[in-house]
Amino acid sequence: MTSPTAGGDVRRTLRRIQTLNLHLLQPPASVVSESSDEDSRILPSPCAGGRGRPPLSVSRTELAAYMKGRHREIQERIFNFFASRPELQTPVEISTAEHRELCMRQLVALVREAEIRPFRYVLQDPSVYFAIIEAVGGIDISLGIKLGVQYSLWGGSVLNLGTKKHKEKYFDGIDNLDYPGCFAMTELHHGSNVQGLQTTATFDPLTDEFVIDTPNDGAIKWWIGNAAVHGKFAAVFARLILPHQGEGGRSADMGVHAFIVPIRDMETHDTLPMVEIHDCGHKVGLNGVDNGALRFRSVRIPRDNLLNRFGDVSRDGKYTSSLPTINKRFAATLGELVGGRVGLAYSSVGVLKVAVTIAVRYSLLRQQFGPPKQPEVSILDYQSQQHKLMPMLASAYAFHFATQYLIDKYSEMKKSLEDEVVGDVHALSAGLKAYVTSYTAKSISVCRESCGGHGYAAVNRFGILRNDHDIFQTFEGDNTVLLQQVAGDLLKQYKSKFQGGTLTVTWNYLRESMNSYLSQPNPVTARWEGSDHLCDPNFQLDAFRYRTSRLLQSAVLRLRKHTKTLGSFGAWNRCLNHLLTLAESHIESVVLAKFIDAVQKCPDKSTRDILKLVCDLYAMDRIWNDIGTYRNVDYVAPNKAKAIHKLVEYLSFRVRGLARDLVDAFDLPEIVIRAPIGMTSQPYSQYTEYVGF
Amino acid sequence: MTSPTAGGDVRRTLRRIQTLNLHLLQPPASVVSESSDEDSRILPSPCAGGRGRPPLSVSRTELAAYMKGRHREIQERIFNFFASRPELQTPVEISTAEHRELCMRQLVALVREAEIRPFRYVLQDPSVYFAIIEAVGGIDISLGIKLGVQYSLWGGSVLNLGTKKHKEKYFDGIDNLDYPGCFAMTELHHGSNVQGLQTTATFDPLTDEFVIDTPNDGAIKWWIGNAAVHGKFAAVFARLILPHQGEGGRSADMGVHAFIVPIRDMETHDTLPMVEIHDCGHKVGLNGVDNGALRFRSVRIPRDNLLNRFGDVSRDGKYTSSLPTINKRFAATLGELVGGRVGLAYSSVGVLKVAVTIAVRYSLLRQQFGPPKQPEVSILDYQSQQHKLMPMLASAYAFHFATQYLIDKYSEMKKSLEDEVVGDVHALSAGLKAYVTSYTAKSISVCRESCGGHGYAAVNRFGILRNDHDIFQTFEGDNTVLLQQVAGDLLKQYKSKFQGGTLTVTWNYLRESMNSYLSQPNPVTARWEGSDHLCDPNFQLDAFRYRTSRLLQSAVLRLRKHTKTLGSFGAWNRCLNHLLTLAESHIESVVLAKFIDAVQKCPDKSTRDILKLVCDLYAMDRIWNDIGTYRNVDYVAPNKAKAIHKLVEYLSFRVRGLARDLVDAFDLPEIVIRAPIGMTSQPYSQYTEYVGF
Repeated sequence: MTSPTAGGDVRRTLRRIQTLNLHLLQPPASVVSESSDEDSRILPSPCAGGRGRPPLSVSRTELAAYMKGRHREIQERIFNFFASRPELQTPVEISTAEHRELCMRQLVALVREAEIRPFRYVLQDPSVYFAIIEAVGGIDISLGIKLGVQYSLWGGSVLNLGTKKHKEKYFDGIDNLDYPGCFAMTELHHGSNVQGLQTTATFDPLTDEFVIDTPNDGAIKWWIGNAAVHGKFAAVFARLILPHQGEGGRSADMGVHAFIVPIRDMETHDTLPMVEIHDCGHKVGLNGVDNGALRFRSVRIPRDNLLNRFGDVSRDGKYTSSLPTINKRFAATLGELVGGRVGLAYSSVGVLKVAVTIAVRYSLLRQQFGPPKQPEVSILDYQSQQHKLMPMLASAYAFHFATQYLIDKYSEMKKSLEDEVVGDVHALSAGLKAYVTSYTAKSISVCRESCGGHGYAAVNRFGILRNDHDIFQTFEGDNTVLLQQVAGDLLKQYKSKFQGGTLTVTWNYLRESMNSYLSQPNPVTARWEGSDHLCDPNFQLDAFRYRTSRLLQSAVLRLRKHTKTLGSFGAWNRCLNHLLTLAESHIESVVLAKFIDAVQKCPDKSTRDILKLVCDLYAMDRIWNDIGTYRNVDYVAPNKAKAIHKLVEYLSFRVRGLARDLVDAFDLPEIVIRAPIGMTSQPYSQYTEYVGF
Repeated sequence: MTSPTAGGDVRRTLRRIQTLNLHLLQPPASVVSESSDEDSRILPSPCAGGRGRPPLSVSRTELAAYMKGRHREIQERIFNFFASRPELQTPVEISTAEHRELCMRQLVALVREAEIRPFRYVLQDPSVYFAIIEAVGGIDISLGIKLGVQYSLWGGSVLNLGTKKHKEKYFDGIDNLDYPGCFAMTELHHGSNVQGLQTTATFDPLTDEFVIDTPNDGAIKWWIGNAAVHGKFAAVFARLILPHQGEGGRSADMGVHAFIVPIRDMETHDTLPMVEIHDCGHKVGLNGVDNGALRFRSVRIPRDNLLNRFGDVSRDGKYTSSLPTINKRFAATLGELVGGRVGLAYSSVGVLKVAVTIAVRYSLLRQQFGPPKQPEVSILDYQSQQHKLMPMLASAYAFHFATQYLIDKYSEMKKSLEDEVVGDVHALSAGLKAYVTSYTAKSISVCRESCGGHGYAAVNRFGILRNDHDIFQTFEGDNTVLLQQVAGDLLKQYKSKFQGGTLTVTWNYLRESMNSYLSQPNPVTARWEGSDHLCDPNFQLDAFRYRTSRLLQSAVLRLRKHTKTLGSFGAWNRCLNHLLTLAESHIESVVLAKFIDAVQKCPDKSTRDILKLVCDLYAMDRIWNDIGTYRNVDYVAPNKAKAIHKLVEYLSFRVRGLARDLVDAFDLPEIVIRAPIGMTSQPYSQYTEYVGF
């Protein structure tokens, strides 16, 4: 149980206890109004700031400036527009039918009155587009999704899968909302398995048309946003069938392609003949988006309506493509749609920030119980509440930097189209989308619980945030499926390492350090428990990467073993939990690396110290979260495990002292927070006012 | 890495791989229709059934019979009544205002038409009362809560806190719903801290009345069910103030008591003078229940309206009580309300059963991806899906037996009132309510995610189940607060052990085995990894209890140490996460013990084998869930940790083979399941029909 810093630890522990004591005896009324000063009551952290240095102090301006998105100006235009138009704000209770109409009115007003034109940024400057999506999602998540359906999915299909003729014909109508459209990919029986879609588009050389057909109930296009009420067109994903082009004169199935299919009359808005549209009905959330089900009964469209960037059919029915196989064309088609995942990961962080802001502000204000004959204390002074909310706050910071990085890489990809960047963005967007949305979904529930009964009032937002956000885990790729893509990519990278191939940027650490990770852990460092060591970014990165590399190496061995008896599908399934953990571990490594970068790049010294503290909490919390694995391979000895656990509690306590400033630095306007209990001034009185007192 | 059964393990592993291979290549279409047969394709478990015995086969009838509640008859009357009355069934989308009216109509019809009289069972036979609550909760959770407010909370206050005169005056009106009432305890600023309530009831000796006052905004009664629309009375919890009875002739505050306060006119239903009622508005869920906020402006009620079982005021203003202190009276008052927690724990298991049934049935039916050139496989064949749902299914079984036991103990308590049983029921109801409702809340989200997009259709129930159930974690005692009560009780028990006092029944294991748990783990057994050993109930109980005892002992030491410097409040807070883990660990020990009992008592051999398998999965999953702790104290060596993990995966795979029968044995009628994707026959066609095809 010796440690290089054992003596210092004891002294620090004693100081810490005294501080905690002081802290708990402090009248809690001062907590809200003096959150910046409060940290001065806490002695310097063993990590950030170092020993003997002055206490941490937050410059709200510096911190907010460092966190500010680059496109804050356009976001503020959006916030101000909706703030000035109360009739466009979504009420706390609204029926599905009304919500759908309101959501369309919001979108039309945004485009035609506020003159925000998202479609112009989809290709030109995606980071502006994502900033718009984030801002409108703050107004109503349904609006963010409705906008995404129109511009990323329907519009994105035309831009990314179509050619010049399509852009010329459709750009303006999509841009100005004259052509509201749908993205008709998912079928009742096939969601994740897009290659299993059954809708067909059969070329008819006599009329130079494609005939779109729904061959059975399972092939009904299902969950199609914008279809139930507003859509005029759909980008329909269907198997392209060429009669008489296959072996022995049979039909040839060229695989899944996208087609523009008009579904409603441009004038009357009536459903077009041979198209059947039903309403998917009330959903758990996102009821501002009108999801519908589409059945096609031999619907005829001109040959030009094939979105023909990756594959085309000539007048005489011959298929041409720059890509040699069905699989490659399929990959290219889906690959163009990766922007949706980038947007979801980014927006999910926005939702997490809202939830954690409301919960932290309320927890600072709410007092319950206290020492005998003394005032009650703020519930954020309870260790259990810190445990629920402070690692979550740290994660929101971590994800902020990671998704900013993802957006930069995505923008770079859209410009350069280098293979290396493309592969990186694909795996990273899949992984971050899956990891962040799962984390946010769980966290919103924790926020609700941590705000008790008042968290259950609809006006306090957790319900709608959770219900609307919930499906982020499923659409644009089910999280369990996406994590498998990440695992698959890691295995490919592993293989290429041993075959001398290049590694994409994010994966470089595998090459740099795989060999060291494959050796046994160092029994000496496994016992180091000093906080200087635990808060050393090199130790933290090493711990995360060690875990990933171990998981990767053992996955390779297990897959190799099981493939012999079970085949590749069976072996993959036999190791599936392992592979999912591997993918999560890798994403955590990337998130930590980006957070450490962001800390180091922060120009202001005191802001950097604050961020370092938050980053340490993120790192320790994640290590503690999987301490069993670290212990099992003796990467961490029992004394060190205990020290990590203590450090998580201590750092949570430290971050609690800065919590108000940390959430304020997210800089969320009142129109986004809205919850009375999350307001900065007099939250209870806004709440009683809402109820009618 | 030697083990007594290592050779057997290798052989079994090989067999297992072959089986898995076979299993994955089997056409999945047969899975749904032949789930009983399917298990015969799987070789005998290393645990249940033993080696060389015939494969497990489920007798659905035997299993369902063993799981059947004792009061199924009255539940079926309820189900049949609502099934025959479609106009009383809650639609998928309904406004708050309509839902509240429908919920009241449902309750009135239940009582006056179906002639179910819950109030008659509250004291007389509580297990029937809980069976009624569970069944109506299956119709609409709002209805279960509305019924609970009327009969457990408002009615229960009159029965348990009042005396003969109150029962005579109010019983019939409460019973037949002429007197709908509220339970007005919580205030805007005080929920968990009931002793901090600020509403006052001041005795006026001149008029022989109490004057009820809301002294400030924070003391407004908040979240009061039945208040916004339907209530005529409220049981108001207020500080009883006696003027001139305190020191120096000042007022004396006798602590919190309950008073019957009429709030609306019996004829006109107008709000009574000096009472102010506002609507708490739309909530995350339970919108069938009309929660309101109440402010009293010197409302006068007769002295007789004091519910005077534990404390009374005479005509001349003198206070009398059989209990000596404010704290004891407060404990007695709250103690009578423990029935609500018993009901919530029990109902929460009911909700978990519904969610897991829908998710399992859909996961058996849903197919996605598959081996190359072969049919797609059921998604429940994926290890990741088994990992999500099979331990959850096992937990539903575990909680079923544990809450049945709780209800038995509660009924016993209501008859005997022995101190030992009372203490036991209080701690157990707090612990099970907290543990089960937290588990169910998380599980409903996992079920939604595991059913992908179709899980997001409101008609498929996960949304409403999650939103309605969510607040189970908060009301009738916030879970974090309740777990602290359990921890406090354990510490009391620990103390009494060393002072020679008696231990209540559930805690007996502490006395029996604390000494052995305090010694170091045995380094030989820490390495045993054979499945005979891991599935031995003695090992399993020992592991659970070892963890609890270690946590208890270390909590005692830490509290003792910190109390010296931080005082008792500060020390408690310093150890809070530890104490919460202790409480959860204890509850898990109790749940496992009851499950093992239930397995052993099962009369039918093959049903017993099935239950044993499910119990083993529960036990292994929980140990693996906290493997870090077991590893840290070397209770489990690395090889054993690995074996436990493999066993969790293997048992999940085994239970998957029986999953259809296991959920069917919950015997939930269609009116409770309702979700098209959870239906037994042709789920997709019910779903397409719902959408309009």
